Amino acid sequence: MKDFFNVVTIEQALAFRSVFPEMEIETVPLMDAFERVLAEPVAATENLPDFRRATMDGYTVCATSTFGATESNPAFLTIKGTALMGETPDFSIGTGEACRISTGGMLPDGADSVVMIEHTETLDATTIEVYRSAAPGQHVIEPGEDFFKDEILLIEGRRLRAQEIGLLAAFGRDTLRVYRKPVVAIISTGDEVVPITESPSPGKIRDINTYTLTSMVKACGAVPVSYGIVRDNSESLYQTLSLSLKKSDMVLVSGGSSVGVRDVTIDALSALPQPRILFHGISISPGKPTILAMSQNKPLWGLPGHVVSAMIVFLKIVKPFIERISGVKGLSGQTIRVPARLSRNLSSAQGRVDYVRVKLKTVDGMLVADPILGKSGLINTMVKADGLIEIGLNVEGLDQGEPVEVELFN
Amino acid sequence: MKDFFNVVTIEQALAFRSVFPEMEIETVPLMDAFERVLAEPVAATENLPDFRRATMDGYTVCATSTFGATESNPAFLTIKGTALMGETPDFSIGTGEACRISTGGMLPDGADSVVMIEHTETLDATTIEVYRSAAPGQHVIEPGEDFFKDEILLIEGRRLRAQEIGLLAAFGRDTLRVYRKPVVAIISTGDEVVPITESPSPGKIRDINTYTLTSMVKACGAVPVSYGIVRDNSESLYQTLSLSLKKSDMVLVSGGSSVGVRDVTIDALSALPQPRILFHGISISPGKPTILAMSQNKPLWGLPGHVVSAMIVFLKIVKPFIERISGVKGLSGQTIRVPARLSRNLSSAQGRVDYVRVKLKTVDGMLVADPILGKSGLINTMVKADGLIEIGLNVEGLDQGEPVEVELFN
Repeated sequence: MKDFFNVVTIEQALAFRSVFPEMEIETVPLMDAFERVLAEPVAATENLPDFRRATMDGYTVCATSTFGATESNPAFLTIKGTALMGETPDFSIGTGEACRISTGGMLPDGADSVVMIEHTETLDATTIEVYRSAAPGQHVIEPGEDFFKDEILLIEGRRLRAQEIGLLAAFGRDTLRVYRKPVVAIISTGDEVVPITESPSPGKIRDINTYTLTSMVKACGAVPVSYGIVRDNSESLYQTLSLSLKKSDMVLVSGGSSVGVRDVTIDALSALPQPRILFHGISISPGKPTILAMSQNKPLWGLPGHVVSAMIVFLKIVKPFIERISGVKGLSGQTIRVPARLSRNLSSAQGRVDYVRVKLKTVDGMLVADPILGKSGLINTMVKADGLIEIGLNVEGLDQGEPVEVELFN
Repeated sequence: MKDFFNVVTIEQALAFRSVFPEMEIETVPLMDAFERVLAEPVAATENLPDFRRATMDGYTVCATSTFGATESNPAFLTIKGTALMGETPDFSIGTGEACRISTGGMLPDGADSVVMIEHTETLDATTIEVYRSAAPGQHVIEPGEDFFKDEILLIEGRRLRAQEIGLLAAFGRDTLRVYRKPVVAIISTGDEVVPITESPSPGKIRDINTYTLTSMVKACGAVPVSYGIVRDNSESLYQTLSLSLKKSDMVLVSGGSSVGVRDVTIDALSALPQPRILFHGISISPGKPTILAMSQNKPLWGLPGHVVSAMIVFLKIVKPFIERISGVKGLSGQTIRVPARLSRNLSSAQGRVDYVRVKLKTVDGMLVADPILGKSGLINTMVKADGLIEIGLNVEGLDQGEPVEVELFN
């Protein structure tokens, strides 16, 4: 038999990310920028807000006019006018004066605080009683209190959530520079694999991987393109690889990457322009027979054929590469990890990292991770699971109750 | 001043979900069904797999032929043939016989287990040595081991992840019945609000809520449609409400819902066909001045104008209603909650539920939730935060180190 050649650890595998360039930059309207990756730093072009705003409905006053006011000993103030929404008041407020104001209204000059309407009583058209002392700055947002002019708002490489989109709206950024979404080609291989619309004859199975990988590529914010099922021969696979490599930024081939009777994927990859096989085999389980190659500066993957193995390799290895070429920096990926306690003992072989599917339960306010054991050809184990835990390279196993970190499926 | 009328608790608010009908059902291709909500139960139409498959490359044998085999005392087996991928072997295996097989191949009759190629040696074209005992069933997936015929695979109301899409592919479901995505209209109100492309004059601010709400509606799997900014008067708002109500399944109005000088939203809502104001005010902070109305069986919301209040009300109240009309059942929404410990004391008023923005840190392998305090008009507090914690209705505050559950932003 042929050995695996160039088996790497998961850290070594992930280190190859830096070999691949990021996508080009494009400009998109802010309305379409949700979940896109920012390709420029953004600074505040002005103070936010750039005027003194009320945060409550009521009266704006000089706080000193209310000092010592109580229910039994109210302060009497003269109404000077109304601060109209969206307008600059054309009068100022002095001691003993008040101005009607609504949430979001601009304070007139001289006013430094807002008294809630609930703490006042109207005596006549021009006089109110105030029942509580106001502190200076009470129920007011000061100019620059949200962000000061020139402050850095967002750094390059951030995936934009709703709040970042709102922040950019606040500064009038109606277009933005973002990284182009990578296009990811998906190819299934195997003489036993048939399209899902076919009824498989004995010995054949339907093409599951095209569907799971397409969904996971979408979840990463990339654009999947399916190239269907290719027979188990190097020439057919080479033809489809060549075509897909021209039209995409990354290629995923599932099946055909295990050693033994078939070396179709390696042969086909090696026939591409300036091929480089970066590794063949990762010391993880499931997912050992994974290949990463490079041609024309693009990553091409040979993923295991088993549905669960292909999914786990995607989540743990391929997804970080998609994030890399998508321009994501720091922790702004979409991977969520939560700490939990293990519900039972788990054994593991040394010399490899094991990924175990788990279901999460809450017991006494603590998260408990319950392993779902089963062969990596069985999709039911993924349907039951909420996420994955890791058993490290030099760990023989984990004990019941041990703390683990669960990476959630999305 | 006008009082809030019909102030409800958050539980009472959420109970109104059942008043609103679910979306109609539509049929979509499986390729487009990722993250859609299943509108039919799905059962297994056959065993999965429906034949006995190898999970390793090697030789398939009768396990009894290998009993007692060791390195020093191997079993000698005669190669009967090769199980070709995707085909039914046209021979059977008896005691003392073996058949070459690859991962995913179909076992011939008589064979019950697979010996990994690593545990064999080829002696000549027709003979191998086997160095280890095989157990019956070893490295084999039995018919129905993943799912048995007629087993329920998925129940109605489930939001489909990558693994569920794969499962449906395995059973050849190339089209599916799912709930139509709700269309959600978004209207900003306020005389102080200007489009983001404008430079706001003093006293005015840019329209942030349209952008944050649009993004959050997308994150819920619904379809946002913006109706722009409407001036603070009932007639303008009524016109826009009428139009948007015809063309959408839910309407969000932000701003103008606070009591006091303006009752524009309530007046405009009350002018719609068969209006019902379900509540005006929820005992939560921020977000108290929230209105839910119903007209033509559709929910219409008056949300606070402050960006943070509107986002929190969306996440805690509006989103569960979107999930309801989207057909989501059980826990298959996209809300992720994780347990953590509070980093400092937090006070709270009794008689309302407080939502506090927090940043998550990992300290000694435990998640710690660090409160980000700040006014609900300041978007920077949401940009810094990872999620929300809740301080209950009758709780005066929480102590440092107390366990809390953090609802993560997505």
